[in-house]
Amino acid sequence: FFFVPFFRATFAMSKKAKTDPTELDPKVEAAVDELKKMQDKIEKVEEQFDQKVLELQAEFDKKKRPIFVERNTVIAKIPNFWYTAIVHHKAIEPLLLLEDEDIFAYCTSVFVDEKENVKKGFKIKMTFSSNAFFDDTELWKDVEYGEDGEAKLTHSGVTWKPGKNPGAAETTAEGKKRDRVEPSFLRFFEEESPDDLELAELIKEDLWSNPLQYYTGEAGDEFDDMEEFEEIDVDEEEEDLEDDEEEEEAEGGEKPK
Amino acid sequence: FFFVPFFRATFAMSKKAKTDPTELDPKVEAAVDELKKMQDKIEKVEEQFDQKVLELQAEFDKKKRPIFVERNTVIAKIPNFWYTAIVHHKAIEPLLLLEDEDIFAYCTSVFVDEKENVKKGFKIKMTFSSNAFFDDTELWKDVEYGEDGEAKLTHSGVTWKPGKNPGAAETTAEGKKRDRVEPSFLRFFEEESPDDLELAELIKEDLWSNPLQYYTGEAGDEFDDMEEFEEIDVDEEEEDLEDDEEEEEAEGGEKPK
Repeated sequence: FFFVPFFRATFAMSKKAKTDPTELDPKVEAAVDELKKMQDKIEKVEEQFDQKVLELQAEFDKKKRPIFVERNTVIAKIPNFWYTAIVHHKAIEPLLLLEDEDIFAYCTSVFVDEKENVKKGFKIKMTFSSNAFFDDTELWKDVEYGEDGEAKLTHSGVTWKPGKNPGAAETTAEGKKRDRVEPSFLRFFEEESPDDLELAELIKEDLWSNPLQYYTGEAGDEFDDMEEFEEIDVDEEEEDLEDDEEEEEAEGGEKPK
Repeated sequence: FFFVPFFRATFAMSKKAKTDPTELDPKVEAAVDELKKMQDKIEKVEEQFDQKVLELQAEFDKKKRPIFVERNTVIAKIPNFWYTAIVHHKAIEPLLLLEDEDIFAYCTSVFVDEKENVKKGFKIKMTFSSNAFFDDTELWKDVEYGEDGEAKLTHSGVTWKPGKNPGAAETTAEGKKRDRVEPSFLRFFEEESPDDLELAELIKEDLWSNPLQYYTGEAGDEFDDMEEFEEIDVDEEEEDLEDDEEEEEAEGGEKPK
Protein backbone atom coordinates (compact mmCIF):
# COMPACT_ATOMS: atom_id res chain seq x y z
CA PHE A 1 0.00 0.00 0.00
CA PHE A 2 2.96 2.33 0.56
CA PHE A 3 4.08 2.10 -3.05
CA VAL A 4 4.88 5.64 -4.17
CA PRO A 5 6.52 6.06 -7.57
CA PHE A 6 9.19 8.71 -7.92
CA PHE A 7 7.14 11.32 -9.73
CA ARG A 8 4.68 11.16 -6.85
CA ALA A 9 7.39 12.21 -4.40
CA THR A 10 8.18 15.41 -6.26
CA PHE A 11 4.48 15.98 -6.76
CA ALA A 12 3.91 15.66 -3.01
CA MET A 13 6.57 18.31 -2.47
CA SER A 14 4.80 20.75 -4.74
CA LYS A 15 1.56 20.02 -2.90
CA LYS A 16 3.29 20.55 0.44
CA ALA A 17 4.79 23.86 -0.64
CA LYS A 18 1.32 25.29 -1.23
CA THR A 19 0.15 24.62 2.31
CA ASP A 20 3.07 25.23 4.62
CA PRO A 21 1.64 25.38 8.20
CA THR A 22 4.59 27.54 9.32
CA GLU A 23 3.13 30.47 7.36
CA LEU A 24 -0.21 30.53 9.23
CA ASP A 25 -1.97 33.79 9.93
CA PRO A 26 -2.81 34.43 13.63
CA LYS A 27 -6.51 33.56 13.24
CA VAL A 28 -5.66 30.22 11.69
CA GLU A 29 -3.02 29.64 14.35
CA ALA A 30 -5.65 30.23 17.04
CA ALA A 31 -7.94 27.72 15.33
CA VAL A 32 -5.11 25.16 15.25
CA ASP A 33 -4.58 25.68 19.00
CA GLU A 34 -8.30 25.22 19.56
CA LEU A 35 -8.19 22.07 17.44
CA LYS A 36 -5.32 20.77 19.56
CA LYS A 37 -7.51 21.13 22.65
CA MET A 38 -10.40 19.31 20.95
CA GLN A 39 -8.05 16.55 19.95
CA ASP A 40 -6.84 16.19 23.55
CA LYS A 41 -10.49 15.96 24.62
CA ILE A 42 -11.09 13.13 22.14
CA GLU A 43 -7.93 11.39 23.33
CA LYS A 44 -9.11 11.58 26.95
CA VAL A 45 -12.43 9.95 26.04
CA GLU A 46 -10.50 7.24 24.19
CA GLU A 47 -8.27 6.66 27.22
CA GLN A 48 -11.41 6.33 29.38
CA PHE A 49 -12.68 3.76 26.90
CA ASP A 50 -9.40 1.80 26.98
CA GLN A 51 -9.50 1.84 30.78
CA LYS A 52 -13.10 0.56 30.80
CA VAL A 53 -12.17 -2.25 28.41
CA LEU A 54 -9.28 -3.24 30.69
CA GLU A 55 -11.61 -3.31 33.69
CA LEU A 56 -14.12 -5.35 31.73
CA GLN A 57 -11.38 -7.76 30.69
CA ALA A 58 -10.22 -8.15 34.29
CA GLU A 59 -13.84 -8.79 35.32
CA PHE A 60 -14.30 -11.46 32.66
CA ASP A 61 -10.92 -13.04 33.40
CA LYS A 62 -12.16 -13.49 36.95
CA LYS A 63 -15.35 -15.05 35.59
CA LYS A 64 -13.38 -17.44 33.40
CA ARG A 65 -10.79 -18.47 35.99
CA PRO A 66 -12.94 -21.01 37.90
CA ILE A 67 -14.01 -22.52 34.57
CA PHE A 68 -10.34 -22.90 33.61
CA VAL A 69 -9.63 -24.52 36.99
CA GLU A 70 -12.54 -26.92 36.50
CA ARG A 71 -11.40 -27.54 32.91
CA ASN A 72 -8.02 -28.63 34.23
CA THR A 73 -9.60 -31.30 36.42
CA VAL A 74 -11.32 -32.64 33.30
CA ILE A 75 -8.14 -32.43 31.23
CA ALA A 76 -6.32 -34.42 33.95
CA LYS A 77 -8.53 -37.40 33.04
CA ILE A 78 -7.25 -37.40 29.45
CA PRO A 79 -3.84 -39.05 29.05
CA ASN A 80 -1.22 -37.13 27.10
CA PHE A 81 -3.62 -34.23 26.65
CA TRP A 82 -1.21 -31.28 26.43
CA TYR A 83 1.41 -33.19 24.48
CA THR A 84 -1.20 -34.26 21.91
CA ALA A 85 -2.59 -30.72 21.69
CA ILE A 86 0.88 -29.30 21.06
CA VAL A 87 1.60 -31.99 18.44
CA HIS A 88 -1.40 -30.65 16.50
CA HIS A 89 -0.40 -26.99 16.80
CA LYS A 90 1.65 -26.46 13.66
CA ALA A 91 3.53 -23.48 15.05
CA ILE A 92 4.35 -24.88 18.50
CA GLU A 93 4.88 -28.51 17.45
CA PRO A 94 8.35 -27.98 15.91
CA LEU A 95 9.63 -27.12 19.40
CA LEU A 96 8.77 -30.58 20.75
CA LEU A 97 11.37 -33.32 20.85
CA LEU A 98 10.17 -36.92 20.57
CA GLU A 99 11.81 -37.40 23.99
CA ASP A 100 9.54 -34.67 25.41
CA GLU A 101 6.60 -37.08 25.36
CA ASP A 102 8.22 -38.99 28.23
CA ILE A 103 8.51 -35.74 30.18
CA PHE A 104 4.99 -34.54 29.36
CA ALA A 105 3.67 -37.85 30.76
CA TYR A 106 4.45 -36.33 34.21
CA CYS A 107 2.73 -33.01 33.46
CA THR A 108 -0.21 -32.69 35.84
CA SER A 109 -1.43 -29.31 34.64
CA VAL A 110 -0.86 -26.31 32.41
CA PHE A 111 -2.23 -22.97 33.58
CA VAL A 112 -2.06 -19.48 32.16
CA ASP A 113 -2.60 -16.84 34.81
CA GLU A 114 -3.47 -13.31 33.73
CA LYS A 115 -1.94 -10.63 35.88
CA GLU A 116 -4.50 -8.66 37.90
CA ASN A 117 -4.17 -5.78 35.46
CA VAL A 118 -4.39 -7.68 32.16
CA LYS A 119 -2.36 -4.99 30.45
CA LYS A 120 0.52 -6.04 32.67
CA GLY A 121 1.03 -9.57 31.34
CA PHE A 122 0.58 -13.23 32.18
CA LYS A 123 2.37 -16.31 33.53
CA ILE A 124 2.44 -19.75 31.94
CA LYS A 125 2.79 -22.51 34.55
CA MET A 126 3.33 -26.25 34.04
CA THR A 127 3.20 -28.51 37.06
CA PHE A 128 4.79 -31.96 37.14
CA SER A 129 4.61 -34.97 39.40
CA SER A 130 7.84 -36.46 40.73
CA ASN A 131 9.88 -37.76 37.81
CA ALA A 132 13.31 -39.01 36.75
CA PHE A 133 14.11 -35.93 34.61
CA PHE A 134 14.17 -32.90 36.92
CA ASP A 135 13.59 -31.88 40.53
CA ASP A 136 11.09 -29.07 39.90
CA THR A 137 7.35 -29.48 40.46
CA GLU A 138 6.48 -26.24 38.70
CA LEU A 139 8.07 -24.67 35.63
CA TRP A 140 6.98 -21.21 34.57
CA LYS A 141 7.52 -18.43 32.07
CA ASP A 142 6.46 -14.92 33.01
CA VAL A 143 5.59 -12.15 30.56
CA GLU A 144 5.40 -8.65 31.99
CA TYR A 145 4.51 -5.67 29.84
CA GLY A 146 6.13 -2.43 30.96
CA GLU A 147 4.62 1.06 30.82
CA ASP A 148 6.05 1.39 27.29
CA GLY A 149 4.34 -1.87 26.20
CA GLU A 150 7.74 -3.58 25.98
CA ALA A 151 7.58 -7.18 27.26
CA LYS A 152 10.01 -8.46 29.89
CA LEU A 153 10.28 -12.25 30.06
CA THR A 154 11.54 -14.29 32.99
CA HIS A 155 11.59 -18.07 33.60
CA SER A 156 11.81 -20.63 36.36
CA GLY A 157 14.77 -22.56 35.02
CA VAL A 158 14.86 -26.37 35.08
CA THR A 159 16.87 -28.34 37.65
CA TRP A 160 17.71 -31.35 35.47
CA LYS A 161 18.80 -34.58 37.08
CA PRO A 162 22.27 -35.54 35.86
CA GLY A 163 22.29 -36.53 32.17
CA LYS A 164 18.50 -36.19 31.87
CA ASN A 165 18.23 -33.02 29.77
CA PRO A 166 17.22 -34.24 26.30
CA GLY A 167 18.22 -30.87 24.89
CA ALA A 168 21.75 -31.00 26.29
CA ALA A 169 24.84 -32.03 24.38
CA GLU A 170 25.13 -35.82 24.31
CA THR A 171 28.18 -37.76 25.29
CA THR A 172 28.69 -40.70 22.93
CA ALA A 173 30.04 -44.11 23.93
CA GLU A 174 33.49 -42.95 22.80
CA GLY A 175 33.31 -40.06 25.29
CA LYS A 176 32.92 -37.43 22.55
CA LYS A 177 30.38 -34.68 22.96
CA ARG A 178 27.69 -34.46 20.27
CA ASP A 179 25.66 -31.26 20.04
CA ARG A 180 21.91 -31.65 19.94
CA VAL A 181 20.39 -30.06 16.83
CA GLU A 182 17.13 -29.25 18.62
CA PRO A 183 16.63 -28.36 22.28
CA SER A 184 13.77 -29.86 24.32
CA PHE A 185 10.50 -27.95 24.60
CA LEU A 186 11.53 -27.25 28.19
CA ARG A 187 14.19 -24.88 26.88
CA PHE A 188 11.29 -22.39 27.02
CA PHE A 189 11.62 -22.51 30.85
CA GLU A 190 15.41 -22.32 30.83
CA GLU A 191 16.30 -19.22 28.80
CA GLU A 192 14.88 -16.33 26.77
CA SER A 193 15.07 -16.72 23.02
CA PRO A 194 13.97 -13.94 20.65
CA ASP A 195 10.86 -15.90 19.60
CA ASP A 196 9.74 -16.63 23.15
CA LEU A 197 7.34 -13.69 23.41
CA GLU A 198 5.55 -14.82 20.25
CA LEU A 199 5.57 -18.39 21.52
CA ALA A 200 4.22 -17.37 24.94
CA GLU A 201 1.44 -15.36 23.29
CA LEU A 202 0.59 -18.30 21.00
CA ILE A 203 0.39 -20.63 24.00
CA LYS A 204 -1.91 -18.17 25.76
CA GLU A 205 -4.13 -17.10 22.84
CA ASP A 206 -4.34 -20.37 20.93
CA LEU A 207 -3.45 -23.37 23.00
CA TRP A 208 -4.73 -22.23 26.39
CA SER A 209 -7.86 -20.49 25.18
CA ASN A 210 -9.07 -23.56 23.25
CA PRO A 211 -6.82 -26.63 23.66
CA LEU A 212 -9.60 -29.07 22.72
CA GLN A 213 -9.52 -28.07 19.06
CA TYR A 214 -5.80 -28.89 19.01
CA TYR A 215 -6.23 -32.12 20.97
CA THR A 216 -8.78 -33.40 18.45
CA GLY A 217 -6.78 -31.97 15.55
CA GLU A 218 -9.68 -29.80 14.24
CA ALA A 219 -7.59 -26.63 14.30
CA GLY A 220 -4.78 -28.41 12.46
CA ASP A 221 -7.19 -29.37 9.70
CA GLU A 222 -8.13 -25.73 9.17
CA PHE A 223 -4.46 -25.01 8.70
CA ASP A 224 -4.16 -27.83 6.16
CA ASP A 225 -7.07 -26.34 4.23
CA MET A 226 -5.26 -23.01 4.15
CA GLU A 227 -2.20 -24.65 2.65
CA GLU A 228 -4.29 -25.97 -0.20
CA PHE A 229 -4.86 -22.40 -1.38
CA GLU A 230 -1.19 -22.15 -2.24
CA GLU A 231 -1.79 -24.44 -5.24
CA ILE A 232 1.32 -26.52 -4.88
CA ASP A 233 2.16 -28.41 -8.07
CA VAL A 234 2.14 -31.95 -6.73
CA ASP A 235 0.99 -35.11 -8.53
CA GLU A 236 -2.16 -36.15 -6.69
CA GLU A 237 -1.18 -39.83 -7.04
CA GLU A 238 1.82 -39.32 -4.80
CA GLU A 239 1.82 -40.57 -1.25
CA ASP A 240 0.97 -38.32 1.69
CA LEU A 241 4.49 -38.36 3.03
CA GLU A 242 5.86 -37.13 -0.27
CA ASP A 243 3.20 -34.41 -0.34
CA ASP A 244 4.38 -33.19 3.04
CA GLU A 245 7.94 -33.16 1.79
CA GLU A 246 7.08 -31.01 -1.20
CA GLU A 247 4.93 -28.65 0.86
CA GLU A 248 7.62 -28.06 3.44
CA GLU A 249 10.04 -27.21 0.67
CA ALA A 250 7.53 -24.92 -1.01
CA GLU A 251 7.28 -23.07 2.32
CA GLY A 252 10.96 -22.30 2.18
CA GLY A 253 12.00 -25.15 4.47
CA GLU A 254 15.45 -26.62 4.26
CA LYS A 255 16.60 -30.11 5.03
CA PRO A 256 18.99 -30.01 7.96
CA LYS A 257 22.63 -30.58 7.20
CA PHE B 1 7.36 -18.77 12.31
CA PHE B 2 5.77 -21.66 10.40
CA PHE B 3 9.11 -22.90 9.12
CA VAL B 4 9.08 -26.68 9.52
CA PRO B 5 11.97 -28.60 7.99
CA PHE B 6 11.24 -31.90 6.29
CA PHE B 7 12.50 -34.19 9.05
CA ARG B 8 10.13 -32.41 11.40
CA ALA B 9 7.16 -33.37 9.25
CA THR B 10 7.91 -37.08 9.42
CA PHE B 11 8.70 -36.66 13.09
CA ALA B 12 5.30 -35.03 13.68
CA MET B 13 3.69 -38.02 12.00
CA SER B 14 5.38 -40.45 14.38
CA LYS B 15 4.30 -38.27 17.31
CA LYS B 16 0.72 -38.23 16.01
CA ALA B 17 0.64 -42.00 15.62
CA LYS B 18 1.31 -42.44 19.34
CA THR B 19 -1.69 -40.38 20.40
CA ASP B 20 -4.50 -41.04 17.96
CA PRO B 21 -7.72 -39.64 19.51
CA THR B 22 -9.83 -42.10 17.52
CA GLU B 23 -8.60 -44.91 19.76
CA LEU B 24 -9.92 -43.40 22.99
CA ASP B 25 -11.29 -45.60 25.75
CA PRO B 26 -14.87 -44.77 26.88
CA LYS B 27 -13.73 -43.03 30.10
CA VAL B 28 -11.43 -40.73 28.15
CA GLU B 29 -14.14 -40.16 25.58
CA ALA B 30 -16.51 -39.06 28.37
CA ALA B 31 -13.84 -36.66 29.64
CA VAL B 32 -13.44 -35.20 26.14
CA ASP B 33 -17.22 -34.65 25.95
CA GLU B 34 -17.11 -32.97 29.34
CA LEU B 35 -14.21 -30.82 28.14
CA LYS B 36 -16.24 -29.83 25.09
CA LYS B 37 -18.98 -28.53 27.43
CA MET B 38 -16.44 -26.57 29.50
CA GLN B 39 -15.02 -25.08 26.33
CA ASP B 40 -18.51 -23.99 25.22
CA LYS B 41 -18.94 -22.37 28.64
CA ILE B 42 -15.69 -20.41 28.18
CA GLU B 43 -16.77 -19.41 24.69
CA LYS B 44 -20.08 -18.10 26.01
CA VAL B 45 -18.30 -15.93 28.58
CA GLU B 46 -16.04 -14.62 25.81
CA GLU B 47 -19.06 -13.80 23.64
CA GLN B 48 -20.57 -11.91 26.58
CA PHE B 49 -17.31 -9.98 26.85
CA ASP B 50 -17.29 -9.14 23.14
CA GLN B 51 -20.89 -7.95 23.42
CA LYS B 52 -20.03 -5.75 26.42
CA VAL B 53 -17.09 -4.22 24.53
CA LEU B 54 -19.37 -3.44 21.59
CA GLU B 55 -21.87 -1.76 23.90
CA LEU B 56 -19.06 0.19 25.55
CA GLN B 57 -17.77 1.26 22.15
CA ALA B 58 -21.23 2.44 21.09
CA GLU B 59 -21.52 4.36 24.37
CA PHE B 60 -18.15 6.07 23.85
CA ASP B 61 -18.87 6.76 20.17
CA LYS B 62 -21.94 8.65 21.37
CA LYS B 63 -19.74 10.55 23.83
CA LYS B 64 -17.24 11.46 21.12
CA ARG B 65 -19.75 12.46 18.46
CA PRO B 66 -20.52 15.99 19.78
CA ILE B 67 -16.76 16.60 20.16
CA PHE B 68 -16.25 15.59 16.53
CA VAL B 69 -19.07 17.92 15.49
CA GLU B 70 -17.49 20.76 17.47
CA ARG B 71 -14.08 19.85 16.04
CA ASN B 72 -15.49 20.29 12.54
CA THR B 73 -16.55 23.87 13.30
CA VAL B 74 -12.95 24.55 14.37
CA ILE B 75 -11.50 22.80 11.33
CA ALA B 76 -13.73 24.94 9.10
CA LYS B 77 -11.69 27.97 10.20
CA ILE B 78 -8.46 26.46 8.84
CA PRO B 79 -8.08 26.86 5.06
CA ASN B 80 -7.18 23.75 3.09
CA PHE B 81 -7.26 21.66 6.26
CA TRP B 82 -8.28 18.25 4.89
CA TYR B 83 -6.26 18.60 1.71
CA THR B 84 -3.14 19.46 3.74
CA ALA B 85 -3.78 16.59 6.16
CA ILE B 86 -4.09 14.12 3.29
CA VAL B 87 -0.93 15.48 1.65
CA HIS B 88 0.93 14.50 4.83
CA HIS B 89 -0.57 11.01 5.04
CA LYS B 90 1.95 8.93 3.13
CA ALA B 91 -0.53 6.16 2.33
CA ILE B 92 -3.48 8.31 1.27
CA GLU B 93 -1.50 11.11 -0.41
CA PRO B 94 -0.70 9.15 -3.62
CA LEU B 95 -4.43 9.16 -4.41
CA LEU B 96 -4.56 12.97 -4.62
CA LEU B 97 -4.21 14.75 -7.92
CA LEU B 98 -2.72 18.24 -7.91
CA GLU B 99 -6.02 19.35 -9.47
CA ASP B 100 -7.86 17.98 -6.41
CA GLU B 101 -6.69 20.96 -4.37
CA ASP B 102 -9.06 23.17 -6.36
CA ILE B 103 -11.91 20.78 -5.55
CA PHE B 104 -10.98 20.43 -1.86
CA ALA B 105 -11.15 24.24 -1.60
CA TYR B 106 -14.95 23.75 -1.67
CA CYS B 107 -14.98 20.99 0.94
CA THR B 108 -16.92 22.32 3.94
CA SER B 109 -16.61 19.20 6.11
CA VAL B 110 -15.47 15.61 6.40
CA PHE B 111 -17.35 13.36 8.79
CA VAL B 112 -17.08 9.69 9.67
CA ASP B 113 -20.28 8.32 11.13
CA GLU B 114 -20.17 5.02 13.02
CA LYS B 115 -23.23 2.87 12.50
CA GLU B 116 -25.36 2.48 15.63
CA ASN B 117 -23.96 -1.02 16.11
CA VAL B 118 -20.25 -0.30 15.59
CA LYS B 119 -19.71 -3.85 14.42
CA LYS B 120 -21.90 -2.99 11.44
CA GLY B 121 -19.66 -0.38 9.81
CA PHE B 122 -19.33 3.33 9.13
CA LYS B 123 -19.94 6.04 6.53
CA ILE B 124 -17.42 8.62 5.29
CA LYS B 125 -19.12 11.84 4.23
CA MET B 126 -17.63 14.91 2.52
CA THR B 127 -19.79 17.97 2.08
CA PHE B 128 -19.06 20.68 -0.49
CA SER B 129 -20.28 24.18 -1.16
CA SER B 130 -21.58 25.04 -4.63
CA ASN B 131 -18.71 24.70 -7.11
CA ALA B 132 -17.83 24.55 -10.79
CA PHE B 133 -16.83 20.83 -10.70
CA PHE B 134 -19.92 18.81 -9.73
CA ASP B 135 -23.54 19.24 -8.67
CA ASP B 136 -23.43 17.17 -5.45
CA THR B 137 -23.32 18.78 -2.01
CA GLU B 138 -22.47 15.52 -0.24
CA LEU B 139 -20.26 12.67 -1.40
CA TRP B 140 -20.13 9.49 0.66
CA LYS B 141 -18.67 6.04 0.90
CA ASP B 142 -20.44 3.47 3.05
CA VAL B 143 -18.82 0.40 4.64
CA GLU B 144 -21.18 -2.23 5.99
CA TYR B 145 -19.89 -5.37 7.67
CA GLY B 146 -22.12 -8.40 7.18
CA GLU B 147 -22.79 -11.16 9.70
CA ASP B 148 -19.76 -13.01 8.29
CA GLY B 149 -17.54 -9.93 8.82
CA GLU B 150 -17.32 -9.41 5.06
CA ALA B 151 -17.46 -5.69 4.15
CA LYS B 152 -19.91 -4.37 1.57
CA LEU B 153 -18.98 -0.96 0.14
CA THR B 154 -21.32 1.48 -1.57
CA HIS B 155 -20.80 5.06 -2.78
CA SER B 156 -22.67 8.21 -3.65
CA GLY B 157 -21.28 8.69 -7.14
CA VAL B 158 -20.22 12.13 -8.41
CA THR B 159 -22.36 14.16 -10.80
CA TRP B 160 -19.54 15.96 -12.65
CA LYS B 161 -20.25 19.10 -14.61
CA PRO B 162 -19.32 18.60 -18.30
CA GLY B 163 -15.53 18.31 -18.76
CA LYS B 164 -14.81 18.96 -15.09
CA ASN B 165 -13.73 15.50 -13.93
CA PRO B 166 -9.95 15.77 -13.49
CA GLY B 167 -9.73 11.97 -13.46
CA ALA B 168 -11.51 11.55 -16.79
CA ALA B 169 -9.82 11.06 -20.14
CA GLU B 170 -8.73 14.43 -21.51
CA THR B 171 -9.50 15.73 -24.96
CA THR B 172 -6.48 17.55 -26.41
CA ALA B 173 -6.65 20.64 -28.63
CA GLU B 174 -6.42 18.35 -31.67
CA GLY B 175 -9.55 16.54 -30.48
CA LYS B 176 -7.63 13.37 -29.51
CA LYS B 177 -8.47 11.64 -26.24
CA ARG B 178 -5.62 11.28 -23.77
CA ASP B 179 -6.02 8.82 -20.89
CA ARG B 180 -5.27 10.11 -17.41
CA VAL B 181 -2.66 8.03 -15.61
CA GLU B 182 -4.14 8.78 -12.18
CA PRO B 183 -7.77 9.29 -11.30
CA SER B 184 -8.86 12.10 -8.96
CA PHE B 185 -9.22 11.36 -5.23
CA LEU B 186 -12.97 11.62 -5.86
CA ARG B 187 -12.82 8.29 -7.70
CA PHE B 188 -13.27 6.92 -4.16
CA PHE B 189 -16.88 8.16 -4.32
CA GLU B 190 -17.47 6.94 -7.87
CA GLU B 191 -16.60 3.23 -7.83
CA GLU B 192 -15.34 0.34 -5.68
CA SER B 193 -11.69 -0.57 -6.16
CA PRO B 194 -10.12 -3.55 -4.36
CA ASP B 195 -8.10 -1.26 -2.05
CA ASP B 196 -11.09 0.88 -1.06
CA LEU B 197 -11.85 -1.02 2.16
CA GLU B 198 -8.28 -0.53 3.35
CA LEU B 199 -8.42 3.11 2.28
CA ALA B 200 -11.76 3.68 4.04
CA GLU B 201 -10.40 2.11 7.24
CA LEU B 202 -7.24 4.27 7.02
CA ILE B 203 -9.36 7.39 6.61
CA LYS B 204 -11.43 6.39 9.65
CA GLU B 205 -8.67 5.10 11.96
CA ASP B 206 -5.86 7.50 11.04
CA LEU B 207 -7.07 10.64 9.35
CA TRP B 208 -10.42 11.05 11.08
CA SER B 209 -9.32 9.99 14.53
CA ASN B 210 -6.44 12.49 14.64
CA PRO B 211 -6.23 14.72 11.55
CA LEU B 212 -4.23 17.42 13.38
CA GLN B 213 -1.08 15.30 13.45
CA TYR B 214 -1.32 14.99 9.67
CA TYR B 215 -2.16 18.65 9.14
CA THR B 216 0.96 19.71 11.04
CA GLY B 217 2.99 16.91 9.46
CA GLU B 218 4.00 15.36 12.82
CA ALA B 219 2.68 11.92 11.86
CA GLY B 220 4.54 12.13 8.56
CA ASP B 221 7.79 12.76 10.44
CA GLU B 222 7.28 9.57 12.45
CA PHE B 223 6.96 7.73 9.20
CA ASP B 224 10.20 9.28 7.94
CA ASP B 225 11.93 8.14 11.12
CA MET B 226 10.73 4.62 10.45
CA GLU B 227 12.24 4.73 6.98
CA GLU B 228 15.62 5.57 8.46
CA PHE B 229 15.72 2.11 10.07
CA GLU B 230 15.95 0.60 6.63
CA GLU B 231 19.53 1.91 6.42
CA ILE B 232 19.39 3.27 2.92
CA ASP B 233 22.84 3.87 1.45
CA VAL B 234 22.59 7.53 0.60
CA ASP B 235 25.33 10.17 0.79
CA GLU B 236 24.21 12.55 3.53
CA GLU B 237 25.45 15.54 1.53
CA GLU B 238 22.87 14.91 -1.16
CA GLU B 239 19.83 17.08 -1.47
CA ASP B 240 16.47 16.15 0.02
CA LEU B 241 14.87 15.61 -3.34
CA GLU B 242 17.52 13.12 -4.32
CA ASP B 243 17.07 11.41 -0.96
CA ASP B 244 13.39 11.01 -1.68
CA GLU B 245 14.18 9.63 -5.09
CA GLU B 246 16.51 6.98 -3.70
CA GLU B 247 14.13 6.07 -0.91
CA GLU B 248 11.22 5.60 -3.24
CA GLU B 249 13.32 3.31 -5.38
CA ALA B 250 14.55 1.40 -2.35
CA GLU B 251 10.89 0.76 -1.46
CA GLY B 252 10.35 -0.98 -4.75
CA GLY B 253 8.96 2.03 -6.57
CA GLU B 254 9.15 2.29 -10.32
CA LYS B 255 9.27 5.32 -12.56
CA PRO B 256 6.15 5.38 -14.69
CA LYS B 257 6.58 4.60 -18.38
